[in-house]
Amino acid sequence: MAKDQKKQPRPKAETPKGFRDYFGADVTERKQMLDRIAEIYHRHGFEPLETSAVETVEALGKFLPDVDRPNAGVFAWQEAEVPGGGAGDWLALRYDLTAPLARVAAQFRNDLPSPYRRYAMGPVWRNEKPGPGRFRQFYQCDADTVGSASVAADAEICAMLAAALEHAGIARGDYLIRINNRKVLNGILESTGVAEGKPADDVLRTIDKFDKVGEEGVRQLLTTGRKDESGAFIEGVGLSPEQAGPVLAFLTSKGADNAATLQNLRAAVGASTVGAEGVDELAQIAGMLTAMGVGEDRAVIDPSIVRGLGYYTGPVFEAELTFEILDDKGRKRQFGSVAGGGRYDGLVERFTGQKVPATGVSIGVDRLLAALRAKGLMGGAEPGPVVVTVMDRERMADYQAMAAELRAAGIRAEVYLGNPKNFGNQLKYADKRNAPVAIIQGGDEAARGVVQVKDLILGAKIAAQASHEEWKAQPAQTEVARADLVAEVRRILG
Amino acid sequence: MAKDQKKQPRPKAETPKGFRDYFGADVTERKQMLDRIAEIYHRHGFEPLETSAVETVEALGKFLPDVDRPNAGVFAWQEAEVPGGGAGDWLALRYDLTAPLARVAAQFRNDLPSPYRRYAMGPVWRNEKPGPGRFRQFYQCDADTVGSASVAADAEICAMLAAALEHAGIARGDYLIRINNRKVLNGILESTGVAEGKPADDVLRTIDKFDKVGEEGVRQLLTTGRKDESGAFIEGVGLSPEQAGPVLAFLTSKGADNAATLQNLRAAVGASTVGAEGVDELAQIAGMLTAMGVGEDRAVIDPSIVRGLGYYTGPVFEAELTFEILDDKGRKRQFGSVAGGGRYDGLVERFTGQKVPATGVSIGVDRLLAALRAKGLMGGAEPGPVVVTVMDRERMADYQAMAAELRAAGIRAEVYLGNPKNFGNQLKYADKRNAPVAIIQGGDEAARGVVQVKDLILGAKIAAQASHEEWKAQPAQTEVARADLVAEVRRILG
Repeated sequence: MAKDQKKQPRPKAETPKGFRDYFGADVTERKQMLDRIAEIYHRHGFEPLETSAVETVEALGKFLPDVDRPNAGVFAWQEAEVPGGGAGDWLALRYDLTAPLARVAAQFRNDLPSPYRRYAMGPVWRNEKPGPGRFRQFYQCDADTVGSASVAADAEICAMLAAALEHAGIARGDYLIRINNRKVLNGILESTGVAEGKPADDVLRTIDKFDKVGEEGVRQLLTTGRKDESGAFIEGVGLSPEQAGPVLAFLTSKGADNAATLQNLRAAVGASTVGAEGVDELAQIAGMLTAMGVGEDRAVIDPSIVRGLGYYTGPVFEAELTFEILDDKGRKRQFGSVAGGGRYDGLVERFTGQKVPATGVSIGVDRLLAALRAKGLMGGAEPGPVVVTVMDRERMADYQAMAAELRAAGIRAEVYLGNPKNFGNQLKYADKRNAPVAIIQGGDEAARGVVQVKDLILGAKIAAQASHEEWKAQPAQTEVARADLVAEVRRILG
Repeated sequence: MAKDQKKQPRPKAETPKGFRDYFGADVTERKQMLDRIAEIYHRHGFEPLETSAVETVEALGKFLPDVDRPNAGVFAWQEAEVPGGGAGDWLALRYDLTAPLARVAAQFRNDLPSPYRRYAMGPVWRNEKPGPGRFRQFYQCDADTVGSASVAADAEICAMLAAALEHAGIARGDYLIRINNRKVLNGILESTGVAEGKPADDVLRTIDKFDKVGEEGVRQLLTTGRKDESGAFIEGVGLSPEQAGPVLAFLTSKGADNAATLQNLRAAVGASTVGAEGVDELAQIAGMLTAMGVGEDRAVIDPSIVRGLGYYTGPVFEAELTFEILDDKGRKRQFGSVAGGGRYDGLVERFTGQKVPATGVSIGVDRLLAALRAKGLMGGAEPGPVVVTVMDRERMADYQAMAAELRAAGIRAEVYLGNPKNFGNQLKYADKRNAPVAIIQGGDEAARGVVQVKDLILGAKIAAQASHEEWKAQPAQTEVARADLVAEVRRILG
């Protein structure tokens, strides 16, 4: 700080609102999960792509922010003005991984293989009001195929998603990928004479409530309206019972297996060409999944899956975890959706004017990680390092030699680097570090060429269970020859 | 886009100035290198920390940006105003990994173990003018120990840096860590009577030129000035020959080994207490490195290392790669520095008022990666996936079954998902994908229960060397039973 600057008050040591830090296992467990997923993506021929966090607002697909509220939805700022060149560009942090893919697919369209399979993992930023568990920076993990109109690309993504979930640790039977097709829905709406735009959107929004209100509830909502549990009346969409019929037939067309479902869907779409095309595509996808060894216990046609349909143009899919967990209040509930995706067309068109078909999936990183933890597949507190305590400050090099030997044997180890005066602090530190073993060597032990090896895990057990007498006997601490240090530590860790 | 919105011109598909994308091996090679480094950090008891990209400007340690140039040095923006609460916070992208560590060390000082060893890897952002090879987003990879005043922490960091470089792939003998101590320099300046502040800084800046201008050049620059190669006169710092003497003695005090260097340094610091303390610390570090098995061929005391000294308060270190590479013009040159660090005190003090000693190292991610590539240790074009070509669009499921079988055997494989009409395009695609093998099965082969397996690597060799006759014989393509597909591909890849 220059001396002529005014003295500032102390800054607050705080993350900005809606941001957080990740410590230790928070980082390694997410990394481990993403590494497992990346292995599967790689094996399917997908290439990693890492774009920068910053894009031009123009490329991201937002228009110049309002002067009054420059940050609505995205974190955006204007570059300093170009000397002699007027105002600088508006830049922004990416809000997802699909918008940067669109920019890359357009910018490098002559260099990239076509079709282009890519995966991307990394943080995205949303300038939204933070809430409990809702952060303004979070991870996404996407895989997309750009430039293929074939439903083979969709089927491949579904099969890959199944493999990725399993490789991350979700067992077969604990997840289900449900597949639908926007074209089938369009066919149903066409055959019932519901106009595109708002009326169709209202129907789609109502369909999305099937899970909650059931068949009869949807029928009421599609037609004249419905009284909900609180007694409030929800207005209906206004379809006639004849119009609502096919929609309900579609919604309830899930049969005992894909063959039955497809048969029901064919009946439901009636004479609609686009509807029939949609059913054909689903039949192809079902066949391909079978060929790839993905049975209906892992991925199945399910007409009740809707997803943000304004965006999608063909097959859509969603992976749900089917096991129950206990919520905060100890109640059982389904874990729910952890991934979703589908086919979309508008990707590159904004930039080049050409339609480029694409399909992809996004895995909810935080949700999947939470699921793995809920299943006890992660978060089993990893043991900390072996802590070499310091009895004689002058013999620090001896202690460092011990830690170096342990590390050379592949054992995580560290020397206590705080003030060694109070030995109790050193053991408290070892406890905080979750150390499995502490090494102790005072002058006496050094003279005799031995070290004390303290089994802290066993020690904690004994302390919790044993009488004071037993505790004093300290069977969890053994004295070994200095030369046997590594062997003894290995024995305890083993 | 809402219909009433004005039609916009097509956006430009471009990265913002100074930003870039990383494709395929760019991503995986960096990741591989960082994973190797993280293994070593972890084994030394360091814990990962991932802070968010966004910090308050206040916490980052920059004062409120000028109204005229809000983005000087950092990318910063002001939060939307709080409803009824006046202006929002200024936020910014982190410009390094140390400032967020300082904030974390202060914010969580009651929860973190003390000393706190942490490592961090991730992008940082600088709002600077981009240039060739200079980007505004780049990776840093840091390890720091916060809360230990012991030089054992510095020695540990040096030993860990050696292990990390080797584990990343740099051979012993190809790197050297050079260690100095700011206290020794302070002692020299004290004993020569050079005042603190600008005069001392001028001396330090001059010392930093030792590599370039040599002993005599530094002597001239410290005293009356020097004419450089172009004939221009560089003014001297103005020391008397008596004052310059100890500085030069210090600079040239590197002996045949650490013992000799330390002896020379003891002589050079004369009666200065702080100087003697600095030499003692270096002696301790040297002893600890020996105890940890790090010889002087890997880390050595070297008084000519300076580094941004305003920041450091004790030991400083720098890792240099000692092998030569060819530059753009084919000239041999030393690769130079890839990592550096040292001890600093002001870390947490800004927030809490308490001095917290800390030491750490930062590895130059891009430079180390470039070095590994220059040594041929990375960038050996990884083979692409096996490409299953599509002869009959109707039998897509068959082709997908082949790819699925290959993947189940651990082989990277994909089906061609573009328009299959032009078979030449499929082979061009396989070429672009760097595919080692292409699988071909037309209707005839399907009927006979066989597949064609084309060895593209051998094929390329033959195409480059063989006559047309030989090429036509296509020995690089073999027909095998469908059931033998995986075995045959494995044979070729093996």
